[in-house]
Amino acid sequence: MKKIINEPAAFVDEFVEGILLAHPDLLKTPADDRRVLVRADAPVAGKVGIVTGGGSGHLPLFKGYVGRGLCDGVAIGNVFSSPSSAQVLEATKAVSGGAGVLYLYGNYGGDVFNFDLATDMAELEGIPTLTAIGRDDVASQPKERSADRRGVAGILFAFKGAGAAAERGDTLEQVAAVAEDIIDNTATMGIGISPTILPTTGKPSFELGDGEMEVGIGIHGEPGFHRGELESADRIAERLTERLVADLGIGSGDRVAVLVNGMGATPLEELYLLFRRVHQLLSEQGITISKNYIGEYATSLEMAGASISLLALNDERLALLNAPAESPFFKEA
Amino acid sequence: MKKIINEPAAFVDEFVEGILLAHPDLLKTPADDRRVLVRADAPVAGKVGIVTGGGSGHLPLFKGYVGRGLCDGVAIGNVFSSPSSAQVLEATKAVSGGAGVLYLYGNYGGDVFNFDLATDMAELEGIPTLTAIGRDDVASQPKERSADRRGVAGILFAFKGAGAAAERGDTLEQVAAVAEDIIDNTATMGIGISPTILPTTGKPSFELGDGEMEVGIGIHGEPGFHRGELESADRIAERLTERLVADLGIGSGDRVAVLVNGMGATPLEELYLLFRRVHQLLSEQGITISKNYIGEYATSLEMAGASISLLALNDERLALLNAPAESPFFKEA
Repeated sequence: MKKIINEPAAFVDEFVEGILLAHPDLLKTPADDRRVLVRADAPVAGKVGIVTGGGSGHLPLFKGYVGRGLCDGVAIGNVFSSPSSAQVLEATKAVSGGAGVLYLYGNYGGDVFNFDLATDMAELEGIPTLTAIGRDDVASQPKERSADRRGVAGILFAFKGAGAAAERGDTLEQVAAVAEDIIDNTATMGIGISPTILPTTGKPSFELGDGEMEVGIGIHGEPGFHRGELESADRIAERLTERLVADLGIGSGDRVAVLVNGMGATPLEELYLLFRRVHQLLSEQGITISKNYIGEYATSLEMAGASISLLALNDERLALLNAPAESPFFKEA
Repeated sequence: MKKIINEPAAFVDEFVEGILLAHPDLLKTPADDRRVLVRADAPVAGKVGIVTGGGSGHLPLFKGYVGRGLCDGVAIGNVFSSPSSAQVLEATKAVSGGAGVLYLYGNYGGDVFNFDLATDMAELEGIPTLTAIGRDDVASQPKERSADRRGVAGILFAFKGAGAAAERGDTLEQVAAVAEDIIDNTATMGIGISPTILPTTGKPSFELGDGEMEVGIGIHGEPGFHRGELESADRIAERLTERLVADLGIGSGDRVAVLVNGMGATPLEELYLLFRRVHQLLSEQGITISKNYIGEYATSLEMAGASISLLALNDERLALLNAPAESPFFKEA
C-alpha cells in the first residue's frame, strides 16, 4: 500500500477540508462535519436545486460537479460508501431556493436507499423533490434491464444538462425530464487493468493477472463480463464503441458527445489514443462527434483503466452541454 | 507492463493525432509528421510568439499549454526525449507574427542543445528569438547553482505569465523579462512513490522499495536527495513547503501562488490532502495563498507522486496569472 495520506479514517474529512480551503469563492459547507458541499451562492432563489451524492474516491465525481450550471450540492460518503439520509437532507435544505430539488446520482443500493429516505424527510420540511438516477453502464445489465444498470462516468452529461436546464429557469418537472432524457440516451463501458487500493484496508479492490484486463468493469472494481489478455488501445476502443453504438441504436447521420474517462492512473496520452480510434470508428459509420471530453471525470482512486461514454445528441441536448458552467473542476465558457 | 497503447513506436504520433482530432478549433499542425502543434489562429500578427517543447509523456505539459494567453506553439519529442532543432524551427516559423519569438522550456541538455541550434536557424530566416529556461527544481541543485537546476512543473507559471504578457502586446524583450522574473521567483520540489514505465522498453524508469519514497525526484524519475520510508501526507507537505519557503526567502506578509501537481497515478484526493497542509503551514507563517492550482499539470506518464511549486507574487505577477487564457487543457476566464 502506497498512498500519500494521513490517518486512513481521516482521509475524506481531510481532503474535503482541502477542497474548501482551495475554493472558498465557489464552494461552502453548511455542515459541521463537512460532509455536505454546496455552491457558494446557494440557495439560488427561485431556481430548482440539484443535489447529488455518493461515495468518495471518485474525484472529480461527485464533489467536482457542484457549481453554476451544474449541481447545487453534494452529500459526501466515505470511500465507496453512500452518504447518510441526514447528509442528503442537509444538502437539500441548503440548496432549496423554493422551486424544489432534483436528486441526481448513480444507481447503487445504498445511495438509492438514503436518497429515498431523504425524499420523505424533505417532504416533511416542505421541500418537493424528484429523482433521476444515472444508469449508463451497459456492461452491468442487458438493454432490456437498463433500469437496473449501474451509474458510472456518463452521469457527467446529466449533471451538465440538468444543471443548464435549472439555470435557465426550468421547473422541477422540466429539469427532471431533461435529466431522464439524457440518462436514456447515455451509454458507458469501461475496462480496468489494475485495481484500486482502499485507504482504510490497504487492500486491492480486486485481483487481476499481470497481462490481463477486465472488460465492463465498474467504478468500484465490480466485475465486468470478460476477463482476458490486455489488448491494444485500438482493439479496446473498438470493443467499447461497437457495444455503445449498438446499445444506443445510433447510426449514419447521428451526432454524439464522447467522454473518454481515465479511472485514475491511466496517462492522458493513453486516453487520447482511445479517442483517436473512437473518432475513426464513428466517422466511418457517419456519426459526428459534436462535443468531446477527454480526461479524468470519474475516477476510482488509483485504478488504471478507462471508460468511454456516448450521449446521442439532438439540438436541445447539445445546447445544454454548451451552456456556461463553472466549478473548481469543470468549466464551460 | 500494462499500458493501453498500440505499437510502442507509434505512441507519440497516435496520441498527437488524437489531440488534433479532439481540438481542431484550438490547435493545428504545420508539420507533416505532426511533431509541431500551434494555436489554431497562429501566427498572430504583431504579437510575440512563444514556442515551448520537450519530451512527450508529461501531458498536459507541454502540448497542453498552447493556446490564447499561453504558448503559441510546441515542438514535440519522443517520450522523455528532446524534439529536433528542425521541429523547433518549424514551430518558430509557424508562430512568428513579426514581433519575434520567445523560446520557453525546461532545463535539460537535449532541449537546450536543440533550441540553441534553432535560434541560429531562425536568425537566418530573419526571426529574432530570445530564450528563457525553466529551472525550478530546488532539489536538483543548491540555491547558489540555481541556473543549473532542472525545470519541472513550475514552468506552468512562466507559460501563464509570459503568455499573458505577449497577449497584451509586450515586446520580445519585455516578454522574456516577464518569463525570467517568474522563473526567478518559482521553486518546486517533488516526491515519487512508484515509477514510470516507458512504452518503448516496458521497463520501470527507476526502482523503489515497497514502502519507500524518493524525495526530490525529477519528472523523468531522476534521483532526489533522500530515499526513505514513505511518510504521511502532512509530513511530506511539511518537508517540501519548508524547503520551498526557505529557497524563495519569503515570509510573513508575502503572497504566493501554489501548484500541487500530480505526477500521473496519484489520486486528486491525495493532492487535496497535500494542499490542506500547505495552506495550514503558509497561514501559520503569515503567507497568503492568492492563487492555487491543484491537479495534474506536469506528469510523468503513470508515475505516482506529487510536487509542490510556489511562485512568490507581486501585483504584476498575480495580474498575469489572472489574465484570460484558453487551451484544451487549461482555462482562465
